[in-house]
Amino acid sequence: MSENRALQRAHILANHILRSPPLPSSLSLAREVCLQYSPPELNESYGFDVKEMRRLLDGHNTEDRDWLYGLMMQSNLFNRKERGGKIFVSPDYNQTMEQQREITMKRIWYLLEKGVYRGWLTDSGPEAELKKLALLEVCGIYDHSLSIKLGVHFFLWGNAVKFFGTKRHHEKWLKNTEDYVVKGCFAMTELGHGSNVRGIETVTTYDPRTGEFVINTPCESAQKYWIGGAAKHATHTIVFSQLNINGTNQGVHAFIAQIRDEDGNICPNIRVADCGHKIGLNGVDNGRIWFDNLRIPRENLLNSVADVSPDGEYVSAIKDPDQRFGAFMAPLTSGRVTIASSAIYSAKVGLAIALRYSLSRRAFSVKANGPEVLLLDYPSHQRRLLPLLAKTYAMSFAANDLKMIYVKRTPETNKAIHVVSSGLKAVLTWHNMHTLQECREAVGGQGVKTENLVGQLKGEFDVQTTFEGDNNVLMQQVSKALFAEYVSCKKRNKPFRGLGLEHMNSSRPVLPTQLSSSTLRCSQFQKNVFCLRERDLLERFTSEVAQLQGRGESRESSFLVNHELAEDLGKAFTEKAILQTILDAEAKLPAGSMKDVLGLVRSMYALISIEEDPSFLRYGYLSRDNVGDVRREVSKLCGELRPHALALVSSFGIPDAFLGPIAFNWVEANAWSSV
Amino acid sequence: MSENRALQRAHILANHILRSPPLPSSLSLAREVCLQYSPPELNESYGFDVKEMRRLLDGHNTEDRDWLYGLMMQSNLFNRKERGGKIFVSPDYNQTMEQQREITMKRIWYLLEKGVYRGWLTDSGPEAELKKLALLEVCGIYDHSLSIKLGVHFFLWGNAVKFFGTKRHHEKWLKNTEDYVVKGCFAMTELGHGSNVRGIETVTTYDPRTGEFVINTPCESAQKYWIGGAAKHATHTIVFSQLNINGTNQGVHAFIAQIRDEDGNICPNIRVADCGHKIGLNGVDNGRIWFDNLRIPRENLLNSVADVSPDGEYVSAIKDPDQRFGAFMAPLTSGRVTIASSAIYSAKVGLAIALRYSLSRRAFSVKANGPEVLLLDYPSHQRRLLPLLAKTYAMSFAANDLKMIYVKRTPETNKAIHVVSSGLKAVLTWHNMHTLQECREAVGGQGVKTENLVGQLKGEFDVQTTFEGDNNVLMQQVSKALFAEYVSCKKRNKPFRGLGLEHMNSSRPVLPTQLSSSTLRCSQFQKNVFCLRERDLLERFTSEVAQLQGRGESRESSFLVNHELAEDLGKAFTEKAILQTILDAEAKLPAGSMKDVLGLVRSMYALISIEEDPSFLRYGYLSRDNVGDVRREVSKLCGELRPHALALVSSFGIPDAFLGPIAFNWVEANAWSSV
Repeated sequence: MSENRALQRAHILANHILRSPPLPSSLSLAREVCLQYSPPELNESYGFDVKEMRRLLDGHNTEDRDWLYGLMMQSNLFNRKERGGKIFVSPDYNQTMEQQREITMKRIWYLLEKGVYRGWLTDSGPEAELKKLALLEVCGIYDHSLSIKLGVHFFLWGNAVKFFGTKRHHEKWLKNTEDYVVKGCFAMTELGHGSNVRGIETVTTYDPRTGEFVINTPCESAQKYWIGGAAKHATHTIVFSQLNINGTNQGVHAFIAQIRDEDGNICPNIRVADCGHKIGLNGVDNGRIWFDNLRIPRENLLNSVADVSPDGEYVSAIKDPDQRFGAFMAPLTSGRVTIASSAIYSAKVGLAIALRYSLSRRAFSVKANGPEVLLLDYPSHQRRLLPLLAKTYAMSFAANDLKMIYVKRTPETNKAIHVVSSGLKAVLTWHNMHTLQECREAVGGQGVKTENLVGQLKGEFDVQTTFEGDNNVLMQQVSKALFAEYVSCKKRNKPFRGLGLEHMNSSRPVLPTQLSSSTLRCSQFQKNVFCLRERDLLERFTSEVAQLQGRGESRESSFLVNHELAEDLGKAFTEKAILQTILDAEAKLPAGSMKDVLGLVRSMYALISIEEDPSFLRYGYLSRDNVGDVRREVSKLCGELRPHALALVSSFGIPDAFLGPIAFNWVEANAWSSV
Repeated sequence: MSENRALQRAHILANHILRSPPLPSSLSLAREVCLQYSPPELNESYGFDVKEMRRLLDGHNTEDRDWLYGLMMQSNLFNRKERGGKIFVSPDYNQTMEQQREITMKRIWYLLEKGVYRGWLTDSGPEAELKKLALLEVCGIYDHSLSIKLGVHFFLWGNAVKFFGTKRHHEKWLKNTEDYVVKGCFAMTELGHGSNVRGIETVTTYDPRTGEFVINTPCESAQKYWIGGAAKHATHTIVFSQLNINGTNQGVHAFIAQIRDEDGNICPNIRVADCGHKIGLNGVDNGRIWFDNLRIPRENLLNSVADVSPDGEYVSAIKDPDQRFGAFMAPLTSGRVTIASSAIYSAKVGLAIALRYSLSRRAFSVKANGPEVLLLDYPSHQRRLLPLLAKTYAMSFAANDLKMIYVKRTPETNKAIHVVSSGLKAVLTWHNMHTLQECREAVGGQGVKTENLVGQLKGEFDVQTTFEGDNNVLMQQVSKALFAEYVSCKKRNKPFRGLGLEHMNSSRPVLPTQLSSSTLRCSQFQKNVFCLRERDLLERFTSEVAQLQGRGESRESSFLVNHELAEDLGKAFTEKAILQTILDAEAKLPAGSMKDVLGLVRSMYALISIEEDPSFLRYGYLSRDNVGDVRREVSKLCGELRPHALALVSSFGIPDAFLGPIAFNWVEANAWSSV
């Protein structure tokens, strides 16, 4: 083609383009200097004491956390590497499942040597429990596989022995577990039954001639499934099984069985298979177990709730099988507590990375030939990340509060812990997933590199939304519990007490029709609007269920039909509980910059929750003008929080080494010299 | 501890439990039979012709698709395995990045041998293009890495040569590309500039003494980044660079450079590094490239738009650099077309798996001792999945429609293609991510096993939301284009024509105040309510922007401040465009069961879009009673679509082998015999 024809083609193309929509005009035709990385710290200032804020957020055991961060940074086992002149530690996710499992186990041994788990099962009391929770959180910040593998061993196996077992079990297993002389797993879930634990099909009978229990997997759907530790490392397991005594099924009970000898060989009458490669948590060796009429000593029944006598008589103080089942499940609440808390730390990692990047990455310019604009100076980018930051703060207080109630639990607080931990587990893990997704998109392609963590964390934490109670099922349980409370108070004509429902004893709050900025930021207004929503949804839900029941439907069916109201109510309850915890934290602070900023954060949390929940308009708690005011106020708060963004993520207290390279000098980290 | 003390403890625990919230009472105390897998086909019937529906959904080249599915199933390269008596093909995601890259390249060679790419660059016309698109879609259903690696070679490198180049380039490269004699990549993005292509820092000058261009990477931020193929396999690349002629920057131009010789050795003056492990797409060897004053012949400038004469004079028919830049970008629309379409096929895979599983998995029972209930018989499970199914149908028609406009493109349709493809790329990829996440959670833990695909697809497709145009930026472009159209029509006092805005020439539709079921399902009502939303948001957006401009703000800043309205508008525009395509498809069908079911699907699409967008209440298009009616109708539609769920996912036409084992006999697939 001659030059002339090329020009002709150019003419034709030009004509097409003249009809195309204009593109933004921002080309700097004379670009002099290359792009330079400028650390956010250079341009941003700290408007409050970041160390104090970090102490407030972590809530407890700050020094213990830092000690453990240090231990991990000191060891090459934690995959230390230099990028852009900084040291980072994070797992190499380009390893196969098999490699990830082995390195995770080695990390566990290293931390054992360093004494990290000392007292995790043999010490008791709130202080010991909080320390353990703090250290587990730090492990989870390094790698979810590490904390989950530890969690299975200490919190599932170890706590099952502790809570379901009695002295004989404690003496035999607790210290040995703490020292990793035995490696425990927890065989509850089966291929055919996960959330519905009562439906499990494993069957245990008792043989009085030998004084043994006989555990059997009667069919393929009864194989134990997802059992962390079973595929490779565990020597012992808790087995959940139906207990059949003389032809009567006494329901689900827990037993101890050995599955491997000290050399790692599978024991007789045990078969084990792998669950295979997963989208995350590949450091955890999830496996499957079949029991072929495995015989275990009678003493291996965890007998705190019920026992079988040597001659085969079933004895339990709890006659009702429903209640007996409940007794087994109650101690498992700790799982929901740690999951909720670990979800928030994961969201913190994502936000710290995405916000730091948005304070050093520029794109496009607003004026022709003007300088490119920092991502976080775009109102749309602020709107994507800053509300998530505020939510993470509020939920961080909620997670701490839950831990405090949990470690100080008494029989009286059991119900509240069950309900609150269910709601928080669901809301906080969903929040984590949303936050990580938004952070991944907000950092663009860099978010899909595993070394930058933010995308990888999505796969690593994804299972949170369904394990230890499917989130949707948990939210329904919250609403059912509130329903039961409501019905019981009304029936007995007694005031509401507990679960934060006391506000229902007063008359409905009346909201102002005009919402000024100061009204919107007023904590009393925010509480009122959250209470109004919870109260109204609870009344609607109970009335809808009652109506259906009146027409002959079962209570269960009536719940099922009203699942949307149930979800709205579960959310309203949980969001109000969260608001209360950040209000409490704020109230305890002396006047000053930290309190002021936390006030902004709390208002953002309250208003974004209103902005995002269509219930407020749908049920008329707020008018169209009101929600317009809320949206404008959220924008204003974005602008006011923008200068504090760096300080707010720095206050998360996560050491630089535990964030990804794009959170720092990503130009140098990618320089040829570092290849 | 004696038995007595154990009993005492049991008493104490029992007292705690009596105060705990009741747990659902569903324990079957006498479980007789073990859980059996029952194929959905046994219990569900097909209410319409599934083959016909599949033909309608795929839209074109059904036989070609089946041919390619067959080719992949016949080769061991595609990781064929048996699970539960069925054959499956899907990549082994437990391989390292390096292994995944090699096997992906081998799959490409195999398909080359089989003639799959014949004519992909050398044939022209709508038919050839549609066939190519269909085959690429099938590759993407097997593995996103496979389609992306092909896409980079054929659609980015190949189409750049075809569209930006002239005869000399075509002759030299097109056939060789089709035959993989050369392996191409596409170096546009740099470390410092992704979405903002005009800001790239690579600089090319011309040396008239030798008749060569000299390409240089002046600083680290100018390194080419994310270049698929660059890390390992590509021999040639398109280089996007600023073109500096005698000290004047003529803006971004595209050149051809060789980066590896036939033996795979890196060429002189080229440095290459790896982008590293990613959360998905590890079969694609994304790399980075530095150019050290690389000299290329003058003829390697892709000169369809502009050229440099042998003595160094810059010639272009397009004087304005903005328009010249636009000329370079216009042919890249094909990327958005294929991404949008591939997103919908990914959503189909997720839904087919999750819905089939929900028709074979049971959990809990509604009555004490009653049978466990199929997941899809829970109203809440229907509500989670069936609206996503309806959206996927509607968007499938939209993707097909986009392909048709694209392959039949003319200068007159360029603008519409740009705007519609931007909106659809964003909305369809977000939909894919939401759908996969919901499907993952809906199948519980099984969703995190990579062999079950549904969770893995999230990582594999995640990058869709930000590559080839960040979704948020694209949505803003849609709104800006609508703004320009509005302003232009008003200024010239001419009626709206194109972009589906013709409805704005009539008066505002008036919606009935009472919405009966038949009104809600009426296509005219649905169109009216979507038009009303689009029109009102467009008017609001232009008026808000005008107000700010009136106060002296620049147009660009006025857009930025109104980003929320812009997003609402972009969504309204795109959802209306989608509704129109499913209405068109429905209208073409003869009366009968297929049309009836498609009508239900279309109503579900329309009503769930209303249910989910708070704009309808926020701006008062609908009243609170209205949205209550919409919610009830969505529930009713869930019940009416439930019997068609299996037929609707079977109509996706994805062979069983390309779904995960949990979509079929997951009990047998997990049996000991298959270990």
